[in-house]
Formats: sequence, C-alpha cells, structure tokens
Amino acid sequence: MDDERIGKVFRVIEERRDAFIEELLDFLKIPSVSADSSYRIDVRRAAEWLVASLARLGMETKIFETGNHPIVFGELFTSFDRPTLLVYGHYDVQPPDPLDEWTNNPFDPSIRDGYVYARGASDDKGQLFAHMKALDAWRQCGFELPVNLKFVFEGEEEIGSPSLEAFLKNNEDLLKADAVVISDGHQFAKGIPAITYGLRGLAYFEVEVEGPKMDLHSGGFGGLVMNPIHALIFILSRLKDLKDCILIDNFYDDVIMPDEEEREMIRQLPFDEEALRKELGVRELFGEDGFLPLERKSFRPTLDINGIWGGYQKEGAKTIIPSRAGAKVSIRLVPNQRHDVVTRLFVEYLKKIAPPAVKVNVRVLAGANPVLVDRKLPEMKAAEHAIEIGFGKKPVFIREGGTIPVVNMFYEILGVRPLLMIGFGRPDDRIHGPDERFHLDDFLCGMKTAVALWIELAKLSFRSEGS
Amino acid sequence: MDDERIGKVFRVIEERRDAFIEELLDFLKIPSVSADSSYRIDVRRAAEWLVASLARLGMETKIFETGNHPIVFGELFTSFDRPTLLVYGHYDVQPPDPLDEWTNNPFDPSIRDGYVYARGASDDKGQLFAHMKALDAWRQCGFELPVNLKFVFEGEEEIGSPSLEAFLKNNEDLLKADAVVISDGHQFAKGIPAITYGLRGLAYFEVEVEGPKMDLHSGGFGGLVMNPIHALIFILSRLKDLKDCILIDNFYDDVIMPDEEEREMIRQLPFDEEALRKELGVRELFGEDGFLPLERKSFRPTLDINGIWGGYQKEGAKTIIPSRAGAKVSIRLVPNQRHDVVTRLFVEYLKKIAPPAVKVNVRVLAGANPVLVDRKLPEMKAAEHAIEIGFGKKPVFIREGGTIPVVNMFYEILGVRPLLMIGFGRPDDRIHGPDERFHLDDFLCGMKTAVALWIELAKLSFRSEGS
Repeated sequence: MDDERIGKVFRVIEERRDAFIEELLDFLKIPSVSADSSYRIDVRRAAEWLVASLARLGMETKIFETGNHPIVFGELFTSFDRPTLLVYGHYDVQPPDPLDEWTNNPFDPSIRDGYVYARGASDDKGQLFAHMKALDAWRQCGFELPVNLKFVFEGEEEIGSPSLEAFLKNNEDLLKADAVVISDGHQFAKGIPAITYGLRGLAYFEVEVEGPKMDLHSGGFGGLVMNPIHALIFILSRLKDLKDCILIDNFYDDVIMPDEEEREMIRQLPFDEEALRKELGVRELFGEDGFLPLERKSFRPTLDINGIWGGYQKEGAKTIIPSRAGAKVSIRLVPNQRHDVVTRLFVEYLKKIAPPAVKVNVRVLAGANPVLVDRKLPEMKAAEHAIEIGFGKKPVFIREGGTIPVVNMFYEILGVRPLLMIGFGRPDDRIHGPDERFHLDDFLCGMKTAVALWIELAKLSFRSEGS
Repeated sequence: MDDERIGKVFRVIEERRDAFIEELLDFLKIPSVSADSSYRIDVRRAAEWLVASLARLGMETKIFETGNHPIVFGELFTSFDRPTLLVYGHYDVQPPDPLDEWTNNPFDPSIRDGYVYARGASDDKGQLFAHMKALDAWRQCGFELPVNLKFVFEGEEEIGSPSLEAFLKNNEDLLKADAVVISDGHQFAKGIPAITYGLRGLAYFEVEVEGPKMDLHSGGFGGLVMNPIHALIFILSRLKDLKDCILIDNFYDDVIMPDEEEREMIRQLPFDEEALRKELGVRELFGEDGFLPLERKSFRPTLDINGIWGGYQKEGAKTIIPSRAGAKVSIRLVPNQRHDVVTRLFVEYLKKIAPPAVKVNVRVLAGANPVLVDRKLPEMKAAEHAIEIGFGKKPVFIREGGTIPVVNMFYEILGVRPLLMIGFGRPDDRIHGPDERFHLDDFLCGMKTAVALWIELAKLSFRSEGS
C-alpha cells in the first residue's frame, strides 16, 4: 500500500514538474540578501511570498517578527498518533558579489543544461521548496498525510541566525517534534546521496586596525608611523603557519579525533583528488599536514580570511599610508570545540600579538557549535530508506565541513535527537559564489525523498513524545 | 633698483590677491585625476585651461600630445644674455578617495581659516599657479623680465610621469635652461621655508595572487585549498620585519649614509616628536631601529603597502574563500639605489618566497631614482636669497621623503645641475589624502619668491650655456 501511494505521488511530481519549476523561479527572483540592509524589504517580500504559498497548501501559517528578518511558520496537523516532522529551511541568501563573475543576473534565474542558475538556488530556496512541493503533490492525490508537518523557514541563516535561538525558546510547545529534517547541504557527489551526521561549527570575526587618523602620503610619512595594513598583515600572518596549523594558543585543546570506524568510512568514500584539483583550477590541493583532504574538511578545524581591505584598491599607483585596514576571519570548529571558548582564545591571542603602535578592534559576527548526530538512531535508518526511494540510490554517511548553526539549536533547545540532514544539492552547486545553481533532477528527487520520508517515519513504533 | 622693482611687483600681488585666488579656484574645480581613466576628458580640460592662461600672459604656448595626458609648454623669451629658468609643475592630481572623509567636495574648493581646500590645492596646482601669477603681476608693472622663462606643466606626474622622459629627449633644444625650479613640495614646517636638495626614489608594484578559479564556500572547502588572501599575507609579511627592516635579499647593498655635516644639519632642525604624534593621532611614532624620525624619512629607504583587497569587504559575515587577492606595494629609495635594480630584487625575492599552491603576478606600476643636488651651487644661494625675500625668512636645507621622478630626468636628460626644489606648501597640507589644502599666505609668498628668484638668478655672472 505504501508503494501504491508513492507511485501515485511520484507520477504527480513528474506531471507537474514544469509548473513547480516556474514557482521556484518566482521564489528565486526575490533578492532576499540578509547580510546587506539595503535588501531589507526584499527579505520581507520573500517571507510573505512563502506564507501565501504555505496557505495554499492548506497549512496554518504565521509570521514571527524578530528584530530584523521574520521567521515563517506553517503547520499541518493530522493526528496525535502520528509522528511530527519539523522541516527547517532558510529563505535568505548570501550577497551576490562579485556580480561581474555571474553569467546571468543572480536574481534573474536562468535554466541551462538542466540546472537553474540563481543566488539561493541551492542554498537554500530550491531545497526547502522541494519539501513544500512534495506536500503539494501529495495533496493532489487525496491521501491522508501519515505525519504531522511543521515548516520553519528563517530569514537570517546567512548572518548566523541571531534570532532563532530566542524563537525556539519562546515557542517550545508549538515546535515540538519527533524529528527535524534539514535540507541545506548537498549529496556527497554526483549520484551519491548522503546523510550528514556531523557539521563543523563557526566563529566569525571582523578585525580592524586603526593607525593615523587620516590617510598620509607614503613619501613624506613613510618611516614615521606604523602602516595599519602592515600591522593587520602581521597579525593575520600569525594566525596559522604555512602547514595550515592554527597558532592561537590552546586552540586544539578540545579537538577530538573520530573513532576508527569513522575514519575507515571516510577512506571508503570515493574521492578523486586530481579531478577536484582541476575543477577548482588550483596548482595543488592544500591543507594541514598529516591528514587526507576529506579528513581535513570533515573533522579538522580550519581558519580562513574571508575578506581583507585597506588603502587604495583602484587602477594605478596611489602613494598613501591609509588610516585603517580590516579583515574578516572565520574559524571552522569541530567536536568538542565551543564557539564561545574559541572566541575568547582568539581575542586573547590578538591582544597578545597586536603591535603597540596601532589600535586593534575585534568584533564577533557569528558563532555556532559543531554538531554530531548518533548515526545509529532508527530515524537515521528511515531517512536512509527514504533517500534510496527518492534518489534511487543508498546514501553514504558523512560529516560536512560547513556550518548550520540552527542544527545545534534544535538539539540543545528543543531536545530533538534525530536531526536528519539530507542535502538535495550537489557539492559543485557553487553556493556562496558566482553562478550558484541547483540541478532540476535534484529538485525532483528531493520532492520524492520528502514524500518517502513521511511514509518511512510513520512506520517507526510510536515516538510521539519529544525525546 | 632691484628693491624698487620688488616693492612694486609685491604691491600688485597684494592688490590683486582676490582675483588671483578666484582664478586658482577655477583651476582647482577641474577634476584632473590622471590615474583613473574615467577622468580623461577632465585632465585635457585642465591642460587647455592652462594654455589659455599662459597665452594671456604673453607666452608662446604649445600642447604636446603623449599617449595619454598632454604636456603644456609656455615660453617667454627676452634676451640671449639673460639666464633661462625652466619652471616645472604638474596639473594632474591624485584620486580623491576616500570621498566620504572630505569636508567639502574635493573638486568644489572651499576657503576656510585662510586655507583653500581641494584635491590638488597644494599638489601641485596651487604651487605651479603661483609661478604663473608672479609673471602676471610682474607684467602689470611694465618692467622687462630679467630672465627667459619656460613653463613645463605635465599631466601624468601622479602616475609616474611615463611620457616625460621621451618629451625631454625629443625636445632638448626647446627645453635648454640654466636652472630648473620645481615647486612641488613643502616648507620644512610652518614658518620655516626650505630648499630641498634630496628626494627619495620610488619602486611601485601591484602584487596579485590567484587561487581557485572561483570563489568557494569556506565551510565546504576550508582545508582543501590555499586561500589566496593567506598566500598574499604570507608574502607581504615577509617584506619587512617588525623593526621596519626590509627583508628583500641584497636590498640595502647600494644604500649610502649621509656625511657628518648632513646628519648634523638634520639634528639641528626643529622637530617635536610628541606634537607630530598627536597631530597624526597615533599611539607612537614608528620606524627603523637606530635612526631618528627625520633620518628615517630623509635618507633611509622604506616600504609601504598602499592598498590591499580580496574577498568580501561589506557588511556582515560572508563565508568564502576568494579566488584572488591583491595589494599595492611601494618602496622609497635613497642614494645610490636604482629603481630598476630594486625592481629586479623585489621580483626575485617574491619568486623565492611565493607558496607553490598559488600563482603570483607582479606588475611594475612606477619607478624613479633618488636625487641629490649639490647644495653649494651658486644657484642654490640665489634660491636661498629669493626665499628669504619672498617668505621673509631664511630657508633650511633638507632632504625630502617623497619622490618627484621628473627631477631626475632634468638632471639626466637635460643635464641641468641647479635643480631648485622650493616647496611653497606646508607639511600638513594633507596631499594625497582627504581635505587636501593650501594656505593662501603660501600662495602669496610663493608668487613673491618666484619674482625674487628671477632677480637673484639674473645677478649671477653669465651662465647662459646649459652646463
């Protein structure tokens, strides 16, 4: 009987493919950039667009205001004796810069070679929309939903989800769920779907160095003052060495290594180092000594400078000593590091190494702890089956290099243990970069996986309590 | 009889002060930014404005085309038995960035507290214009000019004077002169006029690092590739140490120390370290170990990063590894360093230290050799007297930290030895920075000094040959 429902719903998904894609394009056209306040109205427009869509799916909806961008909530309750699945996603997107490296306008989606190209296509609008359209297809078949569904879509994920924690704390009853599914990642590789059971955390800083109170001529003043760009470079060059080892005092104290079974799982994953090198266009892959590339991005912390600025950046030669310079620095954390501890270590280290001739300011822009889900939970098994049905292939279990700060919040605040991270996208979707894209096959397989997940979760023995 | 002429001309300068200032404001309104090609038309407009002004002074004028911005020439010949003075200046200006740190629009001059505020006010429009208006006042008195005058005003000084060398070589006869006066610097301090007999040279580079061919997500790719900002920082942090000692191999080989008389002259100059520190708003002055501040900027080479860029520079947290990063690096050279030698050393050093995982490109943007004029020449004595008459105070002899690439060209190509560098501006005129300014008293004293210089030079025994 399950198979019968699946067959019917899948047929509707295939039939309505083009209409679903059209709707997705409408969603992608809204430039909901959360980091840049000049897009504020557009972020709200995206939230309102979602609420209207959810209402058309028969859901009870509500917009929750925050200090900044709103949270969209939708609920479809069917029965107390069915498990409740909470679907999390985010409708905000990264800034589209650098604009001139895009083939199409990032907010005027273009379909080429089976992909839809747009900012947010894969991260995360396309993925969350697959869950919504799965419900659309299901409802058209007239079946009763085997689960209770709750949708939580936030608009601040790309700026570190500053309002979500309070939202979860203030609405614990409303959000009670037996499992949370999050599709904000990607498959392991083309044709190899995955369940992510680990995520790295994040500590993100802005460092600014203040030198003279005005820009100075480098001829007349070169030799008289410390150049703030030099001071900044001095600081940044002491954050890690040329073997990619982080130099912040006590930084590695809380880092734990994975067990042998896990390391073996990583080694079994197909990984073509040369193909990746070519795809990225680099001379060689690079990272911490003593670890394989997949290990480095799975369970080792890394530090990156995400941006740097100071002085004259345009055409030609301007001979100044600028009055200030700055950089954005982020650290990816692994179990059992805590972002607040690492933030303290970072600030202390900077205080220690900052040259006395300049003033150094540090601002904390984001923080999130790393996550590890028990990969033996029955809900993980259900998700494994659902993916096999939706994508036609058994998934691998992986730990991801990225950060989804909210996953930790669902664990810590709502107490949900089965956190099902099922990314529908692909590793080369170019999220956060120019020409971000999402394959339309993945959009379809994502809808099918969502449908299969409801059926698989409903099969598990009654777990209607929240822990 | 000299004194009589001076008294009369000085009275005219005082009487016509306001009209002269009005004309200067018109000149300053033209945004003749040579480094930025979007101002190309404005640079030409400034050249044409000058030609018209020179013609009104009774000069024969000509515009010399270059591949880029034109050179303006004006000549007033009086007699073969009078010395010929060539006045050099430049009508192009530095880019006005950062615009938001200006009190007034940089090309809408504003007069406050006796200063005119505008980009180019001191560097060099206001100073070259003083020489022109001196001639204006002189002619109104009806005296015969005691010298032959040649004006050469170029439009590419701020981009390293790429066309001037060919211009001088192609027009040696036209430009023959007994002395060259250049007012493109400043007095030693408020109330202490100076003759500059030394300049530092310049080698200016743009360094660009290429990493992956597209921006990458720092979560998914952190630990897999070398971040080009890191590679850049690694390189830049190895250019000099924290004691401001330049680390490029063999860099100091050709540096010569000044003689004891010179060092004593420097030590005699009034210099208030604490006042300068306060004025610049820095915690402490900073520079090479073992040298006084004035020594560091007079006869020691320095290296500055004038600009740096890469990745995300705007509001908020964007988690990318950028595909490229770059910086502008300039080195101030001292006798007997040569810019071509230092350029070779720089490129070789970068090749040696560049991390193999990235591609590093170096572009040479400008080069100029340092200059030392014999401070015992009779023309230097004449200039000393002229300044005493024009400013009412005996000048000090100094070596400047900045670079005027053309001074070297006049020495090397035209073979002129008396290179009279008489800056009318002040050290705190904020040239190259926001709120550049020029004091109107200096404008007047500059005109008077120009007048006195003609008279003093004419007193020297016939030196009508070019060497």
